Formats: sequence, structure tokens, C-alpha cells
Amino acid sequence: MDSFVVQTTQRNEMVDVTPEVRAALARSGLRDGFGVIFCPHSTAALTLNEHFDPAVVQDMVAWLNRAAPPVPVETGFQDHGANSDAHIKATLIGPGLTLLVEDGNLTLGRWQSIILCEFNGPRQRTIQMKWVGQRGPA
Amino acid sequence: MDSFVVQTTQRNEMVDVTPEVRAALARSGLRDGFGVIFCPHSTAALTLNEHFDPAVVQDMVAWLNRAAPPVPVETGFQDHGANSDAHIKATLIGPGLTLLVEDGNLTLGRWQSIILCEFNGPRQRTIQMKWVGQRGPA
Amino acid sequence: MDSFVVQTTQRNEMVDVTPEVRAALARSGLRDGFGVIFCPHSTAALTLNEHFDPAVVQDMVAWLNRAAPPVPVETGFQDHGANSDAHIKATLIGPGLTLLVEDGNLTLGRWQSIILCEFNGPRQRTIQMKWVGQRGPA
Repeated sequence: MDSFVVQTTQRNEMVDVTPEVRAALARSGLRDGFGVIFCPHSTAALTLNEHFDPAVVQDMVAWLNRAAPPVPVETGFQDHGANSDAHIKATLIGPGLTLLVEDGNLTLGRWQSIILCEFNGPRQRTIQMKWVGQRGPA
Repeated sequence: MDSFVVQTTQRNEMVDVTPEVRAALARSGLRDGFGVIFCPHSTAALTLNEHFDPAVVQDMVAWLNRAAPPVPVETGFQDHGANSDAHIKATLIGPGLTLLVEDGNLTLGRWQSIILCEFNGPRQRTIQMKWVGQRGPA
Repeated sequence: MDSFVVQTTQRNEMVDVTPEVRAALARSGLRDGFGVIFCPHSTAALTLNEHFDPAVVQDMVAWLNRAAPPVPVETGFQDHGANSDAHIKATLIGPGLTLLVEDGNLTLGRWQSIILCEFNGPRQRTIQMKWVGQRGPA
């Protein structure tokens, strides 16, 4: 298993980790197969989306904050840790991605970046990866 | 990697692609293992749900449109591409599915169809697939 | 393929199935690889989240019920089966998880439990699993 660590800087933040994942894929030597990318945290998540135009992830954070506002803004949330909004956002988006690999490259679409979604930062977050399939020289 | 293309016809649309995925599974010859089904687009997604009663996906589209209305309906969205609602919907639902295969068949439940969720159509959408495990004659 | 059955007791319920999944992993003998955990139902789902503090999943259920209230509470839902809320919740959360395995253990974070999300119970729900990779004695 390979992994890397991301230091987030805000409570809610969308961090493009595509370069780190691509570097791990190159380290693995995988030519054809798939990668499982996993976030072992209950208040963070992984998604694919556009990161080129920063307005897209800003709008996504704004939408999530409005949909699941922080405690205790009239939510009636009972969690004494006061981070139920973060747990809900994490479950809505999900903890992992399975990505396809062809000719040593991810098959991501042009507008798909791999985004670590921080909902309870700033924290250090780990991303774990396994690369499965045929390895070999390019 | 196998793939197929779907031509969607509306901005928001739920298209049952189970027959196309089953045909790809048959082409692969996989008897026992799993398939990774992937949508390389940032304003479309893949889910499993009931498609037999059309009211279910109609209600799902209606719910998503109310939860994330199109710009600029009092959302304050900043994306100049005016499709932040589509990006948000895609991230909520997710870009891929990993499905189990037994005896050459998907292990889907009786009421589970594979649904391409279009949120920024009409467009041509590609679905990519890899089938992993034991192959052989039936 | 391995599987187990869960009897749920409420319409909306979050059931910690981590012990059952860990038992299946032990049965498989997998040392290094991954598991695909799949829920073959269109009104239930699987997620990872904290289950130690019961307030977290209570808040999650409360949030989901407020976001997608049962028919016909002013939703205009058309599904005559009157369970569109359950289908929507299931699609938002998703039908499966791919989990990494190292040294015979899941790599889950400290606060991640595997949670079966019931949205149309009480029912009997099946969880299917495949474990892929290197097997062997500890």
C-alpha cells in the first residue's frame, strides 16, 4: 500500500490531490488495471470534479455548508463533538474512489480532478492507495 | 478497457444503461469477479436504483433540482459556466460503481438498475468498464 | 462470494456491520488486497462513518429525513410506492464500498465503522462481499 499526507488549512476545503495520486501511480509501475484511492477519516471524503475553475469547488463548499450548516445553527444536532455537519458531508460524498488505468495513465476525463474534501480541518489527512493489475515498463 | 457511448436528450435525465453494461460483461467472458464502471465526466454520474417504475427516477431528478437549483436562482453560485448545480449533483452521486459478478452475471438486486445520471445534457457521455477475475466458458 | 443478512428494526436505521465484515475477511484468509462490499437493494446503502458516539448517526438520520421527507409531505413525489425518499437517500449514499486490506486487517481509520443504512425497513438486508488479493497464513 502506498499513501501520502495532506495538510489542510481550513475547516471546509477542497484540495486537488491529482498530482500526488499520479505520482503514486508512476511509483507503482502499473500499466493496465485500476487503483483504489481511500480516505481513512470520518470527516473528510474523496470525489472527482472540476478544479480548473476555482468557482466550481467554491460553489460546492457553499452548497454543502448551506445544506448541512455547522452546529448549533438551528439544526437540533445532538453530537456533542459539534461536527455532525462534517460527518454528514463526508457520508454524502463518500470515502473512496476506484479509478481505471490504461497505458500507465488514469482514464480521468478532461475536467475531472481528484479532490480531497476536508470538512473538519485544518488537519493532517492521509490518502491510501493500492494499484492492481499488470505492471511493466512503458 | 471496454466502453460505450450514450446520447442524452435532456439537461437532467436518468438513463438505464443496464443492458449496455450486461452486454459488455458478456463480451468480457468474465465468470467470477467484479467490474469497475466509470463515468469520465464532471457533470454526470452513475448510480444504482429502481428504473422499473419511472416515477422513482422522476422523483429523484425533481429532488435534485430542488436541492441544487440551476444558477442563478438565488444560489449565489459564482461559476461563470453556470453549471455548478450539475457539478454538485455529480459529486453527491459519484463517478463510478464496482459491481460483483457470479456465474457470469451481475449480482444486482431485483430493483437495481445501472443508471447514468445526466446533469448537463444533452450530451454524448462515455461509460468505461474493466472486468476483473476468472474468465471462461459458461 | 460471501454474504450475510441483517434484520433491521426501523424504517430509517444505521446498523454497524463492521464485526460481520471483519468476520468475513477472516474467513477469506486474505492478507493483502481489497474487499468489495455491496448492498443489492435500492432503498438501503452502505457508508463509512463514526458509530462510537450514537449521536453522529442519529444526526445523520435526522438530516436525511429533513432533506428528503417521506411522501406525501409537500414533496410532490409521484412514486405510488410512496418510498421515493428511501430511493433518494440510497442513491445519495451509494450501494457499495471498496476497502483496503493490509496484514489481514481493514485499513479503516479509527473513527470509521461500516454502516448499513436502512431507509425502508424493517426488512432483511443482504450484504455481499468479495475479497481479492494475496491469501495465506498470518
